[in-house]
Amino acid sequence: MFKRTVAAFAQNVGKTIPPVKLGYKNMLKDPSKKYKPFAAVNIPHRQWPDNRITKAPRWLSTDLRDGNQSLPDPMSVEQKKEYFHKLIEIGFKEIEVSFPSASQTDFDFTRYAVENAPEDVSIQCLVQSREHLIKRTVEALSGAKRATVHTYLATSDMFRDIVFNMSKEEAIKKAVEATRLVRKLTKDDPSQSATLWTYQFSPETFSDTPVEFAVEICEAVKAAWEPTEENPIIFNLPATVEMSTPNNYADQIEYFSTHITEREKVCISTHAHNDRGCGVAASELGLLAGADRVEGCLFGNGERTGNVDLVTVALNMYTQGVSPNLDFSDINSVVEVVERCNKIPVSPRAPYGGDLVVCAFSGSHQDAIKKGFALQEKRRAQGEEEWRIPYLPLDPKDVGRDYEAVIRVNSQSGKGGAAWIILRSLGLDLPRNLQMEFSGVVQDKADSLGRELKSQEITELFKETYNYNDNIRSISLIDSNVVKEDKERRTLTGQVEINGQVYDIQGSGNGPLSALVDAMSNLLNVRLGIANYTEHALGSGSATQAASFIHLAYRRDSDNEKVYRWGVGVSEDVGDATTRAVFSAINTIIQSGDVSLPEKSTKASGSA
Amino acid sequence: MFKRTVAAFAQNVGKTIPPVKLGYKNMLKDPSKKYKPFAAVNIPHRQWPDNRITKAPRWLSTDLRDGNQSLPDPMSVEQKKEYFHKLIEIGFKEIEVSFPSASQTDFDFTRYAVENAPEDVSIQCLVQSREHLIKRTVEALSGAKRATVHTYLATSDMFRDIVFNMSKEEAIKKAVEATRLVRKLTKDDPSQSATLWTYQFSPETFSDTPVEFAVEICEAVKAAWEPTEENPIIFNLPATVEMSTPNNYADQIEYFSTHITEREKVCISTHAHNDRGCGVAASELGLLAGADRVEGCLFGNGERTGNVDLVTVALNMYTQGVSPNLDFSDINSVVEVVERCNKIPVSPRAPYGGDLVVCAFSGSHQDAIKKGFALQEKRRAQGEEEWRIPYLPLDPKDVGRDYEAVIRVNSQSGKGGAAWIILRSLGLDLPRNLQMEFSGVVQDKADSLGRELKSQEITELFKETYNYNDNIRSISLIDSNVVKEDKERRTLTGQVEINGQVYDIQGSGNGPLSALVDAMSNLLNVRLGIANYTEHALGSGSATQAASFIHLAYRRDSDNEKVYRWGVGVSEDVGDATTRAVFSAINTIIQSGDVSLPEKSTKASGSA
Repeated sequence: MFKRTVAAFAQNVGKTIPPVKLGYKNMLKDPSKKYKPFAAVNIPHRQWPDNRITKAPRWLSTDLRDGNQSLPDPMSVEQKKEYFHKLIEIGFKEIEVSFPSASQTDFDFTRYAVENAPEDVSIQCLVQSREHLIKRTVEALSGAKRATVHTYLATSDMFRDIVFNMSKEEAIKKAVEATRLVRKLTKDDPSQSATLWTYQFSPETFSDTPVEFAVEICEAVKAAWEPTEENPIIFNLPATVEMSTPNNYADQIEYFSTHITEREKVCISTHAHNDRGCGVAASELGLLAGADRVEGCLFGNGERTGNVDLVTVALNMYTQGVSPNLDFSDINSVVEVVERCNKIPVSPRAPYGGDLVVCAFSGSHQDAIKKGFALQEKRRAQGEEEWRIPYLPLDPKDVGRDYEAVIRVNSQSGKGGAAWIILRSLGLDLPRNLQMEFSGVVQDKADSLGRELKSQEITELFKETYNYNDNIRSISLIDSNVVKEDKERRTLTGQVEINGQVYDIQGSGNGPLSALVDAMSNLLNVRLGIANYTEHALGSGSATQAASFIHLAYRRDSDNEKVYRWGVGVSEDVGDATTRAVFSAINTIIQSGDVSLPEKSTKASGSA
Repeated sequence: MFKRTVAAFAQNVGKTIPPVKLGYKNMLKDPSKKYKPFAAVNIPHRQWPDNRITKAPRWLSTDLRDGNQSLPDPMSVEQKKEYFHKLIEIGFKEIEVSFPSASQTDFDFTRYAVENAPEDVSIQCLVQSREHLIKRTVEALSGAKRATVHTYLATSDMFRDIVFNMSKEEAIKKAVEATRLVRKLTKDDPSQSATLWTYQFSPETFSDTPVEFAVEICEAVKAAWEPTEENPIIFNLPATVEMSTPNNYADQIEYFSTHITEREKVCISTHAHNDRGCGVAASELGLLAGADRVEGCLFGNGERTGNVDLVTVALNMYTQGVSPNLDFSDINSVVEVVERCNKIPVSPRAPYGGDLVVCAFSGSHQDAIKKGFALQEKRRAQGEEEWRIPYLPLDPKDVGRDYEAVIRVNSQSGKGGAAWIILRSLGLDLPRNLQMEFSGVVQDKADSLGRELKSQEITELFKETYNYNDNIRSISLIDSNVVKEDKERRTLTGQVEINGQVYDIQGSGNGPLSALVDAMSNLLNVRLGIANYTEHALGSGSATQAASFIHLAYRRDSDNEKVYRWGVGVSEDVGDATTRAVFSAINTIIQSGDVSLPEKSTKASGSA
């Protein structure tokens, strides 16, 4: 299925744009007769909006059941195994693996899960409330260290009417019968005592069931099961289809949580889908409203729009200082397994895991992030650990992503982006004025290519533009000697090679740098001024180098315009770095054709 | 960028599964020192959880600004134009088109938008609060029928400290100065009176700004602008980065809405991003809390995880009986333009627009949907219009999607799915028992292929399995004659052709059907019983046909097992449909090799 989508997408992107259609009207109908607003629960003294999520819930992954059943191409057995072990690695202690009464494949995989699960992991199976299916399900789970039998029954008016044609009384009777049967076959059966049996019941669909009836049927089920505080019964309250804004789901959960008796023997579980794009919010507000457990899938796989994305719910918690007890420290490997097994790509904009979500393309965002990192280094030096970087709610390193992806450069990017790339690739912290100049160079290039530039392309563009170190092609210094004439005056003599010709140079100034610039001014017959000069250390310890930046100014003969050229040099020796920076700039000047070379060289370099 | 992802994804899906790694541990760090929980606003008497969304908000699309700046490959000018006209077609009356002071391309496109916008559409541009940039922006918007100048300023502690190093007092001063300048250049300038100028100010990032300060700076801006009830000032309150659960954003909006003065002259706008996957919820709860306007992008494009998806917010409203005033009745064409211009695919699980979101693969879901459609037809006949189909919160037809995609069949599907396909493709409403049998055939096929079956493949499989109509290959009826012996007894005589040989047949029963079955029993020397027989009309009016289903039973000679075979026949004549059904079943029986053909035929068919 997705393969089709990918192909169609690729074709569409390459397509010629059709002519603009104006005045087209095909309005959506008036929905007021066809759709009714959701009937909200009346909660006079609701508490949840004042609550906070302060600890991790119990998690259940239903990737292998709800997720798998909704795939155009369901997982192979090998893929289910790989996925199962990945879930365990992430830290899931409750995994719904199948609907074993529905097919032999599901039954067999359940046996694999039972036999290969660690002791602290409970294997959960879904089953309809029917005798022969329940028997088959218990058979599939036999011998597990921990097992959860999950039954469900239609309780919403729509499902009872349309699908099952069953009254409320019949529903309660059927749910109690199923519960008694599961009880008889599991915790009441001495031959099954090697397993810790848990029971889960889902009133389906809870979000569309009158809350009073949801409580009523769950009370009856609870009485039939007789849970304990140590091993509570799980009432899973599915928003199988999202029906309304997520605050209404929270109201329903709060009602349930405050009306069910023996609350300490009950584990309330959310099971949110994403039909209205609010699965994460529903689960989180559900937790505020009293839920103890969250069911969902990695990156929101599942029927239609998917189940809630557990990666997002867990890492949302993490960014608020609460450990989720799930390990996404290597999120790329999770994406890899999920994509390989589901054959549906994780959206590039999926929170935390998407390719684009730690990227900033806009200049102002890039600039802010850069400043944030700089300030953070200072704060760290003072022992402050708090993560406070604009536009990055999570440190990408915490999920195993690197900073290289953070700032990316397209034609809409400002100076900060390219500067960041150069900082990360060459270690150079460009002066602000050089950032602006280079940013223009990058934008022109991105515009002319009509696409994003890769980091490496930007680095190469920088080296080329500024004749960076070994890229100085037209001119080089052969030797030089600086003599201190008096306190404020130095004289420099030496030789340079330009395009294979050697020239003597001589100049003076109040230091070696100004003397060198003076000497080059004399040689090139142009007055070069130093508009800006900065340097910084690069690296640390014995590998420390110096980076020098020089901004030379001169008046161009042809039009009398004042022209500025940047040069950059890096060396272990500060003086050498400066010299390299000067020659980097002068190389650009010579290449620009703004100056004429002296007519006679000292000698050919070949015979030196 | 995405092209890379697609390639990597495709490669990954095809990859050999690496051996299972067990015991791997690389735990996420303890987040408690690094991340601080969000500091919630104290709202003693909050109102929003009791509110409802009862009317459409003002909408602003920032696809061409926030959306475009975050694309790895930004839109070409042609693509921006196509997108712009699509937005107008959908019904957007406010469109943020650019950051015109940032580049000539953006400036030029703004001119295009100004010159091509309908009279009732306001063109909005974003600009930093700096004099020369504001001047350039007003220049870009000059001559528009309606224009909105959108300035922003850092107000959150983090942004003021890290990015701008500005005190609160300085921020207020700067915001007021920028507002005064915009006012002077627009509504106070007589030469600009052809344009209806609106002013929008964003305290950036609102979600991270103390609400008291957000109100304070907006009061100062409002006083400087002096809005009217007819043309209110827009205070856009961005959750530029999602900071917390969406109820906290709603609290912030409610605080702002109840504390800003001259509320009637103020339009409160949400601008939610999706870092925590709650952009839709934040916008919706924001509306409950008093917001009048929603900013976002189609299918949630925008920096990082994207802006809120406006398609979802609008259609969520629609499913509650509230018209969104945006037209998504041809959602596929919207997906097409968005994918072509953004070069990022709409997720197959994106609410409303995703490829998979109107699909059900699971048997129980398919069954429920099928029952829902059947009941709905009855209700419609009684004049009831309400949409009430399990698992489908929105009628796919309302967004221009067809029902064919609703039910799809993979190896996890039950009987309902394949039956649905046959109902849609051949018009046959299969008896339950036939549904179950055919479902097994489909599952085996899907299992053996390891993938979803296409509708057409399922239809072909059905025709082949049941020798449907013209596919009856081994046997056919040449002629027959039924004589009524007495009230309860008919005798049939005739001729059939089997594999090119012609045979006389004779039999009797209490009707033509039982007489035909008796005749075939005599010919094939096997006692055929009718286990089940049903028929239904197919089509309507003059094109009505009859569909017949017969279930024949016999005891197999070789192992004495009782065997059942279905037959299906369709014809304009009911009797003929029944005969076709019988021969469809008998063809299967002959092909199975369970019966032996009579030794001598009447004559060769060739010489008939």
